[in-house]
Amino acid sequence: MSKDMILEKIEQAVKILNEKNIDMWMTYVRETGNIKDPMLDMIVGTNATWQTAFIITKSGETHAVLGSLELENMKAVGTYKNIHPYLKNIKDELVKVLDSIKPNKIAINFSRNSSLADGMTYGLYLELMDHLKETKYANSFISSEEIVAALRGRKSHTEISNTKKAIEDTLKIFDEVTKFIKPGLSEKDIANFVLDICEKRGLEPSWEVEHCPAVFTGPNTAGAHSGPTDRKVECGHVINMDFGVKHNGYCADLQRTWYVLHPHEDKAPIEVQKGFDVIVESITRSANEMKPGKQGWEIDQVARNYIQICGYDEFPHGLGHQVGRATHDGGALMAPKWERYNNLPYLELEENNVFTIEPRLTIKDYGIATIEEMVLVTKDGVEWLSNRQKEIYLIKP
Amino acid sequence: MSKDMILEKIEQAVKILNEKNIDMWMTYVRETGNIKDPMLDMIVGTNATWQTAFIITKSGETHAVLGSLELENMKAVGTYKNIHPYLKNIKDELVKVLDSIKPNKIAINFSRNSSLADGMTYGLYLELMDHLKETKYANSFISSEEIVAALRGRKSHTEISNTKKAIEDTLKIFDEVTKFIKPGLSEKDIANFVLDICEKRGLEPSWEVEHCPAVFTGPNTAGAHSGPTDRKVECGHVINMDFGVKHNGYCADLQRTWYVLHPHEDKAPIEVQKGFDVIVESITRSANEMKPGKQGWEIDQVARNYIQICGYDEFPHGLGHQVGRATHDGGALMAPKWERYNNLPYLELEENNVFTIEPRLTIKDYGIATIEEMVLVTKDGVEWLSNRQKEIYLIKP
Repeated sequence: MSKDMILEKIEQAVKILNEKNIDMWMTYVRETGNIKDPMLDMIVGTNATWQTAFIITKSGETHAVLGSLELENMKAVGTYKNIHPYLKNIKDELVKVLDSIKPNKIAINFSRNSSLADGMTYGLYLELMDHLKETKYANSFISSEEIVAALRGRKSHTEISNTKKAIEDTLKIFDEVTKFIKPGLSEKDIANFVLDICEKRGLEPSWEVEHCPAVFTGPNTAGAHSGPTDRKVECGHVINMDFGVKHNGYCADLQRTWYVLHPHEDKAPIEVQKGFDVIVESITRSANEMKPGKQGWEIDQVARNYIQICGYDEFPHGLGHQVGRATHDGGALMAPKWERYNNLPYLELEENNVFTIEPRLTIKDYGIATIEEMVLVTKDGVEWLSNRQKEIYLIKP
Repeated sequence: MSKDMILEKIEQAVKILNEKNIDMWMTYVRETGNIKDPMLDMIVGTNATWQTAFIITKSGETHAVLGSLELENMKAVGTYKNIHPYLKNIKDELVKVLDSIKPNKIAINFSRNSSLADGMTYGLYLELMDHLKETKYANSFISSEEIVAALRGRKSHTEISNTKKAIEDTLKIFDEVTKFIKPGLSEKDIANFVLDICEKRGLEPSWEVEHCPAVFTGPNTAGAHSGPTDRKVECGHVINMDFGVKHNGYCADLQRTWYVLHPHEDKAPIEVQKGFDVIVESITRSANEMKPGKQGWEIDQVARNYIQICGYDEFPHGLGHQVGRATHDGGALMAPKWERYNNLPYLELEENNVFTIEPRLTIKDYGIATIEEMVLVTKDGVEWLSNRQKEIYLIKP
């Protein structure tokens, strides 16, 4: 992320601290070459080796307390104004900085609900508590999850533009896949075709290449988070692919569904068509309900209920997640009230959130129908960011 | 890492659990696309989205408790034999697995001392404790740091071979840099020359390309963990470069020192030669003291004292760290007893540890002299893995 974009996000963070009346936000890290807080790229722009505190205050100050060997690097990076180097132990320098800020409430990088706000490891937390045990600050900590959810979720104009370009690049590749698929190719062949295009165009896949793209052909495919296998495309298969590329670090995450015609067919069988249509309609109905203030589970329920009423099993995951620099981004999640999602389904959608909508159903003996679209939450509804798939793509053998 | 190498490391882990009499080791993670436990590549070989427990027992069992959507992927990866999928909440399935193992002592992935053993985030720790609060297991936890230090530190034959190849590839590039350096080039020019070679040869730098290589020319350079700048090479500069590439994921990490002759010179000035020789001698003396059973701070002290006795300031960092899949790897560290290093300087060197030796000193008005070599700890001493630099490299203008 460029220095300008980071400074823009820091400025946004200061506004959020004021809105939520939190005196300061501290991101506490170490050895980020080994394990990296997910917020560092967005609000710092460099790594840290020894214990390091990156602080943003409600009044707009920025402080970095870091190992002295990294002083010059931090100056060169230029994202934090006040730099406080230490040699042997961070404690004294850290307490001095906190004493100068005098915060009553300090948000730190831990969260039970959101992995993106949960960058402080448990051992490091114990270290921090030990440094501050004789101060009043040890009792001032709250989770940074609300700040992180707002900062990552409320997309700026630049962030939305980057996302749109990522979607455009991704959909172009889906079109090329439609021309490429034929019986006899394996899931891996299709994935490699896609990865070759990415390499030629210098496009970075949105998640690990082991399952980006994920390709599933026919009945009895592997689970949704699996990589492509040697399973071969056959006539009568429903195929789906889950894929996206990044633009300037911002991800697309989309799915499309194909049907491979038998030589005697000129359209998909009625069961396939029905399953596909149910997915399309469930997306339309969900999107119609989305607007700021709605809780994620309410939207999830629209698609989930519709699919079950139409006679299919409910999908074993959430309806949609936010997308940004991470594929699973932001706070609020459109998911059922299952414990594994913690409080995320209860958070409200906000203006300028970018969400996927990705219901799924199994068409018995054919395969999985799933479409994943991306939408932007607007003042009173949504804007479609992806050009919707409304017809199943037919492959002629 | 290949499946075979992961299975080799899991087997080694079982031996370590027996040696240390720990019933089981649990690596507890979630959303590893956002934040990744540093051990996952070595002992799992895939990512996890929902809360997931990777368990290795003293009796050699492996269990993965994971979100049901990742069942098929885990089967395909094939590194864990017993796979326990869950849909809504990990708790019941996790407790069932623990009840079947009946462990008295459970090592989990947190550590105050070692970031490599500290992959569980604090929010996730709170989640885990909540799942287990009604069981006896919540009181059975110890840090996995001893297991991680042994598993990462005791290198197998394959790991040592990979390290040797990485060193060979790196030193070849250092030789080419010696031919390339001339007055007028900037630190960035030299870094780009190196990165171009890496790209051409398909070599992956050992750490972030922002400061791999790190290049420092002349007096008043940036700190050790800084990236290259526009500062230009001049006659009379001492230059040093910190750099390494990986082979099959195993890192090299080396430093070399050059002197840029004035047109009237045919050797380095006496002050430069003296500084350089002190570095070489401090490395020799440190290496002579290294053997299994020594504590890291004892070795650090040898070089630190020698350099100070010779009239230079002590270096503001440790003498040497372990190297492996991470540049800063393993447990034991050859560093002074500064609080920022926690207990790592007190740990003992073990056979088959790979260490750097990298003292540094400032030659006033010329620049920084620093050499970083890599050694393997043997039964009763060390084997040099890198071909040592014993003469300062001279650049003719």
